[in-house]
Amino acid sequence: MPEVLFPLDSTKSFTEQQITGHNRWHPDIPPVAEVRPGQSFRVHCREWFDGAIHNDDSADDVRHAPLEIVHALSGPFAVRGAEPGDLLVVDILDVGPIPQEDSGPLAGQGWGYTGIFARDNGGGFLTDQFPDAYKAIWDFTGQRATSRHVPGVSFTGMIHPGLMGTAPSAKLLATWNAREGALRATDPDRVPPLSLPPLPDGAILGSLRGGDFDRVAAEAARTAPPRENGGNQDIKNMTKGTRVFYPVYVPGANLSVGDLHFSQGDGEITFCGAIEMGGFVDLRVDVIKGGMATYGVSENAIFLPGNVAPQYSEWLAFSGISVTTDGEQRYLDSQLAFQRACLHAIDYLTTFGYRPEQAYLILGAAPIEGRFSGVVDIPNSCATVYLPTAMFDFDVRPSAAGPARIDPGRGAPKAAR
Amino acid sequence: MPEVLFPLDSTKSFTEQQITGHNRWHPDIPPVAEVRPGQSFRVHCREWFDGAIHNDDSADDVRHAPLEIVHALSGPFAVRGAEPGDLLVVDILDVGPIPQEDSGPLAGQGWGYTGIFARDNGGGFLTDQFPDAYKAIWDFTGQRATSRHVPGVSFTGMIHPGLMGTAPSAKLLATWNAREGALRATDPDRVPPLSLPPLPDGAILGSLRGGDFDRVAAEAARTAPPRENGGNQDIKNMTKGTRVFYPVYVPGANLSVGDLHFSQGDGEITFCGAIEMGGFVDLRVDVIKGGMATYGVSENAIFLPGNVAPQYSEWLAFSGISVTTDGEQRYLDSQLAFQRACLHAIDYLTTFGYRPEQAYLILGAAPIEGRFSGVVDIPNSCATVYLPTAMFDFDVRPSAAGPARIDPGRGAPKAAR
Amino acid sequence: MPEVLFPLDSTKSFTEQQITGHNRWHPDIPPVAEVRPGQSFRVHCREWFDGAIHNDDSADDVRHAPLEIVHALSGPFAVRGAEPGDLLVVDILDVGPIPQEDSGPLAGQGWGYTGIFARDNGGGFLTDQFPDAYKAIWDFTGQRATSRHVPGVSFTGMIHPGLMGTAPSAKLLATWNAREGALRATDPDRVPPLSLPPLPDGAILGSLRGGDFDRVAAEAARTAPPRENGGNQDIKNMTKGTRVFYPVYVPGANLSVGDLHFSQGDGEITFCGAIEMGGFVDLRVDVIKGGMATYGVSENAIFLPGNVAPQYSEWLAFSGISVTTDGEQRYLDSQLAFQRACLHAIDYLTTFGYRPEQAYLILGAAPIEGRFSGVVDIPNSCATVYLPTAMFDFDVRPSAAGPARIDPGRGAPKAAR
Amino acid sequence: MPEVLFPLDSTKSFTEQQITGHNRWHPDIPPVAEVRPGQSFRVHCREWFDGAIHNDDSADDVRHAPLEIVHALSGPFAVRGAEPGDLLVVDILDVGPIPQEDSGPLAGQGWGYTGIFARDNGGGFLTDQFPDAYKAIWDFTGQRATSRHVPGVSFTGMIHPGLMGTAPSAKLLATWNAREGALRATDPDRVPPLSLPPLPDGAILGSLRGGDFDRVAAEAARTAPPRENGGNQDIKNMTKGTRVFYPVYVPGANLSVGDLHFSQGDGEITFCGAIEMGGFVDLRVDVIKGGMATYGVSENAIFLPGNVAPQYSEWLAFSGISVTTDGEQRYLDSQLAFQRACLHAIDYLTTFGYRPEQAYLILGAAPIEGRFSGVVDIPNSCATVYLPTAMFDFDVRPSAAGPARIDPGRGAPKAAR
Repeated sequence: MPEVLFPLDSTKSFTEQQITGHNRWHPDIPPVAEVRPGQSFRVHCREWFDGAIHNDDSADDVRHAPLEIVHALSGPFAVRGAEPGDLLVVDILDVGPIPQEDSGPLAGQGWGYTGIFARDNGGGFLTDQFPDAYKAIWDFTGQRATSRHVPGVSFTGMIHPGLMGTAPSAKLLATWNAREGALRATDPDRVPPLSLPPLPDGAILGSLRGGDFDRVAAEAARTAPPRENGGNQDIKNMTKGTRVFYPVYVPGANLSVGDLHFSQGDGEITFCGAIEMGGFVDLRVDVIKGGMATYGVSENAIFLPGNVAPQYSEWLAFSGISVTTDGEQRYLDSQLAFQRACLHAIDYLTTFGYRPEQAYLILGAAPIEGRFSGVVDIPNSCATVYLPTAMFDFDVRPSAAGPARIDPGRGAPKAAR
Repeated sequence: MPEVLFPLDSTKSFTEQQITGHNRWHPDIPPVAEVRPGQSFRVHCREWFDGAIHNDDSADDVRHAPLEIVHALSGPFAVRGAEPGDLLVVDILDVGPIPQEDSGPLAGQGWGYTGIFARDNGGGFLTDQFPDAYKAIWDFTGQRATSRHVPGVSFTGMIHPGLMGTAPSAKLLATWNAREGALRATDPDRVPPLSLPPLPDGAILGSLRGGDFDRVAAEAARTAPPRENGGNQDIKNMTKGTRVFYPVYVPGANLSVGDLHFSQGDGEITFCGAIEMGGFVDLRVDVIKGGMATYGVSENAIFLPGNVAPQYSEWLAFSGISVTTDGEQRYLDSQLAFQRACLHAIDYLTTFGYRPEQAYLILGAAPIEGRFSGVVDIPNSCATVYLPTAMFDFDVRPSAAGPARIDPGRGAPKAAR
Repeated sequence: MPEVLFPLDSTKSFTEQQITGHNRWHPDIPPVAEVRPGQSFRVHCREWFDGAIHNDDSADDVRHAPLEIVHALSGPFAVRGAEPGDLLVVDILDVGPIPQEDSGPLAGQGWGYTGIFARDNGGGFLTDQFPDAYKAIWDFTGQRATSRHVPGVSFTGMIHPGLMGTAPSAKLLATWNAREGALRATDPDRVPPLSLPPLPDGAILGSLRGGDFDRVAAEAARTAPPRENGGNQDIKNMTKGTRVFYPVYVPGANLSVGDLHFSQGDGEITFCGAIEMGGFVDLRVDVIKGGMATYGVSENAIFLPGNVAPQYSEWLAFSGISVTTDGEQRYLDSQLAFQRACLHAIDYLTTFGYRPEQAYLILGAAPIEGRFSGVVDIPNSCATVYLPTAMFDFDVRPSAAGPARIDPGRGAPKAAR
Repeated sequence: MPEVLFPLDSTKSFTEQQITGHNRWHPDIPPVAEVRPGQSFRVHCREWFDGAIHNDDSADDVRHAPLEIVHALSGPFAVRGAEPGDLLVVDILDVGPIPQEDSGPLAGQGWGYTGIFARDNGGGFLTDQFPDAYKAIWDFTGQRATSRHVPGVSFTGMIHPGLMGTAPSAKLLATWNAREGALRATDPDRVPPLSLPPLPDGAILGSLRGGDFDRVAAEAARTAPPRENGGNQDIKNMTKGTRVFYPVYVPGANLSVGDLHFSQGDGEITFCGAIEMGGFVDLRVDVIKGGMATYGVSENAIFLPGNVAPQYSEWLAFSGISVTTDGEQRYLDSQLAFQRACLHAIDYLTTFGYRPEQAYLILGAAPIEGRFSGVVDIPNSCATVYLPTAMFDFDVRPSAAGPARIDPGRGAPKAAR
């Protein structure tokens, strides 16, 4: 096991740890450690809500989830010699739930959760269809996940960090704040909001204190969106064995990581669609000097996915186009086309006996593939979503015999509005 | 070989054939043949531009491609007993270039083409960056494709029909015309247009003649977009061995097929991004009575992909977010995020010596994967594009040694504006 | 379609064709054509028994199959410039059943066969357990195979040539005859025989006539075994897209090919275990001058398998060790261990309702994997056989519920002894 | 983490632990714990030689490895309710090197070893060609393995237990001793021996003491060979996520496990061909009552492999036939054919600069596939071995350019004879 550079004690909150992480992006958040190119090290990661979501049969915690505290990130780690313009090479040597802790109250201790967030507290991809909060608890047995809230389905976890990235420069941070503010200003009262402003309330900024804390807290970017530095990309394919290349914007690169997922479908569509958990990630870093110019990488991660992701060879696929459920034609809108494909999958699964929110939770958590199929055939984009048939206990394919009927069981807990 | 129900003679134009196909959608286009559930049959397909694009080193044909004549479709085929509300089961038993014709002037005779369309004649996914017309000719050797216009790359074709679908009902057709007209009305002079209106000019409507022809030509929908009936979905995964389920909207279902692709990347991003060709497709049809209600499928195809698509295990991936190249923040726009991911891939490949349009042509034609990665992390969607590293003759991965340099050769022909 | 250098007329026997092939190995069999390095060409192939096995419900044809006439081979093809010591590069561009002929009396016309050969007429891998002759007819629908003689199973064909190779030199031929004769001499009356001697009866030797014919017929090697020149290797992985490298032993290399299989399990265990058919193969050849010494290849093919073989991700596996069914311990005998693994699979499948010969026929014809697992753990080798679970219409996995019961139907035809 | 039922302290020898395992098979070795059907539990495993092989640059330890002490096994675990005739279901939930110990003197602490054993101390698959002892040390970085003794190659580990099985009944044990003794008696002085007799010297038998120990030590079977109970099957495909079904021969089943491998090629051809290590395995057990009769499983494991084994899509393959290197023809001997295929691969790799023993070590340790290709084409079996091309740092495929030349470095340590 590589040296643990960022330890976490599962019995303590994220702010009571030996080393404090952060939950905002800012160049002035001090590194927690320096690592050498070529060095391997272990990082513990707290689940993104720092324990606010419980292993129980109520969705009240999801309903009132404290969005201001996410994401609990580990780091930053300064890489010796890394300078702006370099590419930071990050190998994901291993990643998994909290080691040696198979049960307990913290997600990652043998279990994780998927949430459908309420429209007025986060929302989600299909929030118009699913405005209420739901939760599903998933139990881990080895690398398999099953849920008492979603029967008839089990799958091998596609474990990955949902969020990893380098620190922005002051200039880049200013760009973020400006452009996201401009968007928000076009409809400032929208629910869910168009973007999230800097928010001192709930900010955790490593070892910063006093005036520095206040200044940085007022400027620092929220961690929800992916941006030029990587960040919350939620790329399910960044599994064990993946090599990622990040642009470097500040001296030392200042790498941070968190938001581990036991599994996730493409899109993470229920907002908290992955199976969320705390755990560990083993990283090895290196630097390609001047790599940003050499390889034309000015922003966003590029990566070589690992080769031990779960394999499936049979899929059931659904397609969608960019027409709203109200029949309005939109112009080449793949976001909408993917929503429609996912809604088709949900409609289909309900004919087998699932409740719609159970089907939605499956699409968020299971290793589904979401693909851009046609993006140029005016005015309709075509998007497709692929479900591995092997994850169902029954034959999920259409046939003249009609759908098998499953017992949806107690269902996924729903919170009052 | 199954019985050929729709034969084509490569030496004659699409309208001079023994049986005439069609290039518009309308319920009143008469079937060319009736098939029984369980029946297998062969269909010849003309390349979508009916021979207007040539195997040469000029892009003038692409520059002035006659958009009003696409897509040259084979059919419709009436399926005995199929009624509105049923699901039509279509097995793609085999699909390939024109059999027994390995050379000749028609795409599909041992070669195919990929075009970047000019902004004012079709446009494309990256038309702001690539407003001019380019062309690449690909030669087929077995199932491998190579191009004299794009050196250093070869790949196994992922052969599929770009377009297949059932006929719309009169009501559904009216819906299409209404919603697409409403969109077009919001910016009627836009180039490229927001949608394409019915266009009698160039219409081919099977055996219709006289007043029926005129009436139908005035109402019939263009075939460019995918819609509820399937249509031009451009799903690269509909390869040999795939089973597709289409909604049935008219008695007999009236299945049509065309726009064969030797290969295509997800999105078909250069508009004519696939390797276009004529050829054949062997189909077998069946009917699930009442299947639309039974399985909750009111629109759009669902399918079980085949298991002989080319396999790759190593990928180089790029990510993008929904910020424009001008730095404007958009709200959860996966279409834009995928554009940015593709532009990143193009920027990267140019550091190896490719000209930007060559890289763009590769992304359109090669078996790249385009995935929705994050679609809920306001305000940025995250999209990813995966290139199989094995298709390059050189090591395409980033390293401290810097990129290998390829000779771009003569490059892809470009047309004058 | 590449130029057809070796055409066959399905209505005529192998010896009545425009060009005559061969069914023995000898350096003096004259080439039927010369090809250039880099040239692509099409070759028609006759099924190995030249039509002696029929699409019916009797195994009498298998019982009395004329072993002296196999294998009906196409070629030899001389490659310009190839000399002893070179490596001949052979690309399998495409391979399939008889094109454009979907029904008819000749295997390859939409159907193929698998035979269990009687102990005294060929034998097979499990001839002690299955001394009688059986037959199964498989129907092709696209690339899928099903059989009226073996219900409950269907799979995608893994199409490949069972036999391909270069001509032996006179010296190499002499070596073959000497070593195989020496083996045979140790038990000359064994049934089945230990090896097959040269046999003028039934020999087909291309254009050779008269004294040359008689001389060559007396010396030429039978084509049953694989040898240094490649030959009847029955490697199911030599599918479309494969590149093979053969040693060159005579000027021109003199490449021959035949024994096409629609599908085969590893080992081709029922002797005629593959789904036998006639058809076509498109080849492209090249030469690596001096390649045998350069790459240390003195014998036997090396190859790069294609990437469009059928994909399966779920397998049911059986193991076996080198102890006979009578309980006798053998020393590190993988042949025996694989027999035992196959027998275990057969025993297992019979608990689902299959008759033993049906299970045996499945293992011969379906894309099963047979692997050497342990070969050093004295005294027992361990071999394993993997069945793709997706090929069964039912759940073939063990569970507490016990096996599903299938109806074995009419069963596979059996011949009287 | 499941409860640890068999803990090991890396600083103590196998016999000094809190709970003592065993290194022989016998029904009377007492269980170390009882588990319930459905229970998950963790088992620590010692590397098979209990620390006798060191992380250094000498092969003297391999030369004199104490064969009498292998294999250090963990268990037996009694499963409540299991009775003879049942099938024991064992899920491999997880398996890996020693957790939290990334460096140290014990194989499994961040490193492992592969040995070529000397002819007179174990031998191996190619002992005639490689009569001397060699060693290679492999370092683990995440799931990747590299070796200072074998440059130019790295691969993802295919981690699995080499040995797992249930206890034999007294009757079955007697059968083993009888048949293996009979074989040994045919050539009692052979080196390496034909089989290994019971050997009290070095026996470890759990908690047995005194007269019981002596009696059992005199009867107990060595653990080298795989047998009816599973045992040392060395099946590389029994990776994480695999479900295995074992016959039950004694009340409680008495499951034991050990001989963990970080990676292994099919066959484990250098005898100690895998990358040997200690570590942990998480198991879950269940019972199918009467399953042996229900499913026709009288002996040997059947299994459903997991779906997270490393994926490769490009392979370089070699073939071999059953003719000895001296030119002697053997009859359908797949063991020999596989030896010849492996020798061909070794000859090939030496043309790139590898020393023969380095190539041999690669074949033993890397995830190569070894397949039975033809087993019925008298007199030659055909076997094939597939190397993933991606594991080499250079292009390992044949071409007109000739082989790249690697620097073999210091090479693999060799021991004096």
